[in-house]
Amino acid sequence: MTEQDRQKAAAAAAAVAEVRPGMVVGLGTGSTAAFMIDLLAERVRAGLSILAIPTSERSDAQARRTGIPLTDFAAHPEIDITIDGADQVELGTLNLIKGMGGALLREKIVADASKRLLIMADATKLADRLALPVPVEVVRFGWEATARKIARLGGHAALRRDAAGAPYATDGGNAILDCDFGAIADPASLERALREIVGVVETGLFIGRADAVLVAGPDGVRRLERT
Amino acid sequence: MTEQDRQKAAAAAAAVAEVRPGMVVGLGTGSTAAFMIDLLAERVRAGLSILAIPTSERSDAQARRTGIPLTDFAAHPEIDITIDGADQVELGTLNLIKGMGGALLREKIVADASKRLLIMADATKLADRLALPVPVEVVRFGWEATARKIARLGGHAALRRDAAGAPYATDGGNAILDCDFGAIADPASLERALREIVGVVETGLFIGRADAVLVAGPDGVRRLERT
Repeated sequence: MTEQDRQKAAAAAAAVAEVRPGMVVGLGTGSTAAFMIDLLAERVRAGLSILAIPTSERSDAQARRTGIPLTDFAAHPEIDITIDGADQVELGTLNLIKGMGGALLREKIVADASKRLLIMADATKLADRLALPVPVEVVRFGWEATARKIARLGGHAALRRDAAGAPYATDGGNAILDCDFGAIADPASLERALREIVGVVETGLFIGRADAVLVAGPDGVRRLERT
Repeated sequence: MTEQDRQKAAAAAAAVAEVRPGMVVGLGTGSTAAFMIDLLAERVRAGLSILAIPTSERSDAQARRTGIPLTDFAAHPEIDITIDGADQVELGTLNLIKGMGGALLREKIVADASKRLLIMADATKLADRLALPVPVEVVRFGWEATARKIARLGGHAALRRDAAGAPYATDGGNAILDCDFGAIADPASLERALREIVGVVETGLFIGRADAVLVAGPDGVRRLERT
């Protein structure tokens, strides 16, 4: 295990420790979430009784394989805690950029239905200002017109492509535009402006949603609360 | 031809008369739009040079079959005029409810990219206040949670089903919730509130988008401009 993997596993272990019996748990997506799902499955095998809702086909498959019992929104429209990763975390606000893994839409739907959102990260993800390109999930039909409207907000929008060079397709069959706005002074306003654009399904800006971030470093795991 | 079909054809003919050579034309969807596409194809066969962008697989197929040359947003991100139907038209504002035919998302993307939106309707579609159930296109994943959030706005949300009883699937693979709010006092606010809900892809409320409505009746076609 690399040092980075060791840190991801440490953050995942700290997150899984917050799960209590009887909870409905949202399962995030990504490399840190994969550690979390494995560790949660260990607790389930040791007798922890929970139900989970995954945020991607990938996490769904991993949960089934490792024996975590699943539920859905029809049975459980309210989730107790969702545990997920993030691509960038703004210090203080705990605003997030998510979506490099392509699962931002289901991640946001699950987060939105959750009483608590717990984020796992390593120290390299922390920033004074969000500045990564913002993944924006858009309808494939007319995406060129949507990209032009995003450009008018001051962002450069690049269509994400898969390894074969074809437009990347999300679990929902949409496209993703990676939209570079540089350092974002007012993420909440940008999020509102993006969501008003016809053709935008969802954005990777998670504003005021994270309740706590577990940050792994060489000296252990720190817990940041939203201030 | 029934009297209603005769009126639809009359509104369609009046709309097609507004198309000029060299225009990029958005093609709506529905029974009146089907008359319009046939009449536009007649003008193309008579020498009218235009390019069209359809708002549904159905209108796309009809345009191809009748020989209307098509383009796309990559080549033409700006559309000169879009001609479409509506399910209800609010007098004065020309605010619309659209989406009974299931094509509201592409219809709104095309309308949003259009310099002018021309609506065809018969007199039964006019109303002092919009009051039909509003079709809302939502992500299938978690639609039950989305429906609960719409209910909190005061609307009763019913999942649209196809003839076989399965959830209706739009061209984009999403679901539709038909959301009954009764008579809508402030459609612009409702539209904003619906679009803020995570899981909502687009709504069938078209606010301030129609430039004119051609209303067919037994005595001919009237033209309403937005006031």
